[in-house]
This record gives sequence, C-alpha cells and structure tokens, in this order.
Amino acid sequence: MDCIRNRKTIRKYDRREVDEALLCRLLEEAERTQTMGNMQLYSVVLTRDEGMKDKLSPCHFNQPMVKEAPAVLTFCADFQRATTWCRLRKADPGYDNFLSFMNAATDALLYCQTFCTLAEAEGLGVCYLGTTLYTPSQIAEVLSLPSLVMPVATVTVGWPAEHPPQTDRLPLSAVLHRERYVKPGAAEIDRDYAAKEALPENREFVRLNGKETLAQIFTDLRYTRRDNESMSRGMLEALCRQGFLSVGDLKDFLALD
Amino acid sequence: MDCIRNRKTIRKYDRREVDEALLCRLLEEAERTQTMGNMQLYSVVLTRDEGMKDKLSPCHFNQPMVKEAPAVLTFCADFQRATTWCRLRKADPGYDNFLSFMNAATDALLYCQTFCTLAEAEGLGVCYLGTTLYTPSQIAEVLSLPSLVMPVATVTVGWPAEHPPQTDRLPLSAVLHRERYVKPGAAEIDRDYAAKEALPENREFVRLNGKETLAQIFTDLRYTRRDNESMSRGMLEALCRQGFLSVGDLKDFLALD
Repeated sequence: MDCIRNRKTIRKYDRREVDEALLCRLLEEAERTQTMGNMQLYSVVLTRDEGMKDKLSPCHFNQPMVKEAPAVLTFCADFQRATTWCRLRKADPGYDNFLSFMNAATDALLYCQTFCTLAEAEGLGVCYLGTTLYTPSQIAEVLSLPSLVMPVATVTVGWPAEHPPQTDRLPLSAVLHRERYVKPGAAEIDRDYAAKEALPENREFVRLNGKETLAQIFTDLRYTRRDNESMSRGMLEALCRQGFLSVGDLKDFLALD
Repeated sequence: MDCIRNRKTIRKYDRREVDEALLCRLLEEAERTQTMGNMQLYSVVLTRDEGMKDKLSPCHFNQPMVKEAPAVLTFCADFQRATTWCRLRKADPGYDNFLSFMNAATDALLYCQTFCTLAEAEGLGVCYLGTTLYTPSQIAEVLSLPSLVMPVATVTVGWPAEHPPQTDRLPLSAVLHRERYVKPGAAEIDRDYAAKEALPENREFVRLNGKETLAQIFTDLRYTRRDNESMSRGMLEALCRQGFLSVGDLKDFLALD
C-alpha cells in the first residue's frame, strides 16, 4: 500500500482546517480494528480549542506541533465506559487492575495506528507524540480523564506543509526471528546498524554533540537512564491515580515474591 | 480504505501456504510505522514448525488457529537489540525499566497493526490473539526470549477459508470526547449500547448462559475479576523475569508513597 510505503512523519501543517466530518469519518472507520472481546476499550479526546492546546503543550515538552496542528488527538486506554455499562446492567466489573490496563492500552494503540494509516491515506499529515507516556498524570488532569482512563498516545493532525525525506529503517534481518529468538551478537549488530551509523546526518549529529558513537546520543542525551527511571515511577503513579494499579496490589505482589 | 472498512477477523484458513517472501515483504513494509526515536523497539518471531506450534498452542488456551494457521507471528517489545547495540558502542543503556517496556510495547503494537492492515490488504486473513498478555512467561520460555524482550501480541495468518459477517461496533459517540472527557451516564450508555444488546446472537448468548444481561457474560464468564487479578500478577512477574521491572524498583516506588 503506497500510503504506508511512502509515509513519513509530518510536523508542519498549513493553516487549512481539518474538517470535523472528515475526522469523524476516519475515527469511525478505524473502529473496524480488532478489539478485545469486541469491547473497544479505548476513547479519543479531540483538542481544537487554543486554550486547551496551551494546557496540553507543556505535557508534550512544548513541541510546536501541539499548538500548530489544527487537531490534536489523545488516545486513551478506557475501561471506564465498559465498567459503567456493567454497573448499569447488574454486572460486577473487575477491571481495576494491571492486566486490564494492558488490554485497554493494546486496544487503544491498535485503534490509533489504524486511524493514522487512514489519515495518511487521505493525504493528512500525522505526528505521533511519544511524550504521552512521559506525563500521563498531567495529561489526565488537563483532559479531565476519570478513573480507568489512561492516555497512551497522542497524534497531531493537519494538512502537510512540508515534505521531508523518509527516514532510514533497520533491515528486516534485525527484526525477524524464525522459530526462536536468537540474541544478536557483534556481527549481527554491525551488519544491521552499519547503514544507520554511516548516514551523514547521524555522523554530523554525533560530531556536533562531541560524542564518540551514535548510540551515545541515545543513552547520554535523548533517552537517559535517569529520565527513564524517573518517568517509570511517574507511569506507575499514573496507573495508581487512574485506578489500574493499587499500592495494595503491589504489596501483595511483593509478598508473593 | 476498503481493506479496513471491510475487514473481519479470520479464524479458518485454507491449506495453501503463505509464501515466505510475501510475509517478509509485508513485515518489511510495516517497518515504515513511526517508532520511538527511530529505534524500532520491536521484533517478531515467526512460527511455522509444527512442533513449535504444539508448544505455543497451550499459551493461547489451545485456540485452534495456532495449529491450523500456516504462520503464527509473535510481536515483541524489544529493548534487547538496542541495548546490545549500545553496549557494543561504548554507550551505557538504561532501558531495564517500566517506561522502556511501555515505549517498546507501543512500538511493537503499532508495528503489528500496520502489518495486519497490509496483510488484510493483500487478501490474507488475520486473527489477533489477545491471549499473549495472559501467558507472557510461558511464551517467553517457548520462544527463547531473552531479557528485555516481552511478547505483546500474536497474530495467526493464512488465506481465508471462511467469510464471516462483520461484527458490530459502538457508535462514534461512545468513543469520541471533545476537549474534555465526559463520563457517560445512564442515558449515554443506553444510547450507545442499545444496538449491541439488541443483536439476536447476543440475546441468545445471554439466554443460553442463564444470565440477565450481556454485561454479565463479560464479568461472570469471559473476563472475570479473579482471572484478571491472577493474570495481572502474571504480567508483573513476566516483566520482572524479562528485566523490565525489578522487585527493588517496586519497593522504591512503594517507599515513596
């Protein structure tokens, strides 16, 4: 499919609005995505209001797409709706736990990805913001997310105002294992990362930052242990706050150990 | 896109092989999916061997698709490859934590969904197995997954030998919130679940199981609190086993509380 083969992340959008009817059609078509027990354990919050974008922007480290895109979509793992349905139907829901979060996060991410494909096929430009997992409690606060709703992905959407080149990808040999996982050794890593490491822009990036290797850019600058560990605690806190995990559950788990 | 609009889960496959070159092309094309920092934090294990299918089958509660499909793909959150790359390049990786698991699981699920769309566009039938999250430690054992590799999704793939009707979906009003999340009340739940509850097959299912409501089918039979809580512990154990979480991390987290 050309829309997938040719896709690239678009971070600059022109001023043309994205029609509400178009967005709704794509979100509705994306509902065809497979989902756990056909429960559709997700929801989307659409942000268009400038004031709301101002509040969301710091949650995404002030990346300019949040304020500049005509539409910002926050995809959430959602067991709130299903739980409310159960309560109203004389059923006793048991979805305030970690497995249920993982099930709902899966539904939300698959749904989100189908939406992205549909949007790109329509000619829209999409930027996926990984920052959602870094500040889930703040996002929950801004968007008034109740218990059993947890943000897991954000995409900014608009009509493209840039046409960047495609970025590189690892060869399939890095990704595919047959029958059993075989841990890569030095030979496989050299083979699969050589092209990426040789890219002029990557070499320049390493030089400018005074590093020895491209990998150090990731470990020392972009995704550091310190940030990851601090945001891991933030993620666990958010799961507790949103009711998918409890201090009691964790204590029980540790007691079993 | 018709392939998305018309999609349905396919659980019966004809005996025709799925060409290895075709599978590889689709898996490679799916690599266009956006990924965190272009790190591609995923891998796929392809199962074709009958003996391996026999071992995987109980991990998926012996659903017949695992043994009957020509190809079974297990999509994994993978920080092992990136970590090995870092170690071989004088970089100190800090990805043995919960946030890193969530980042890699996200990459893996988005990649998996693009693959499913591409496979369905090619005419292949796909069944997504949610059971992967129920038995991650067993799957890790069968597929020899090392630390920092965690299975998050499984799909069975083959040429369709059935043409089931499409299943229902909730109206978009159930899923979409504008600017802020608004908790559904009885009126919204009645509106959004009426069509699902009225379906003859659902009414029959409720009657056959001696239940009062469709919601009770979910809470009492399909996804019970007891199973969810037990599998939540299994998921946390698997994250510890695969090195994405440690008892120390959890103790530190509880001490902060």
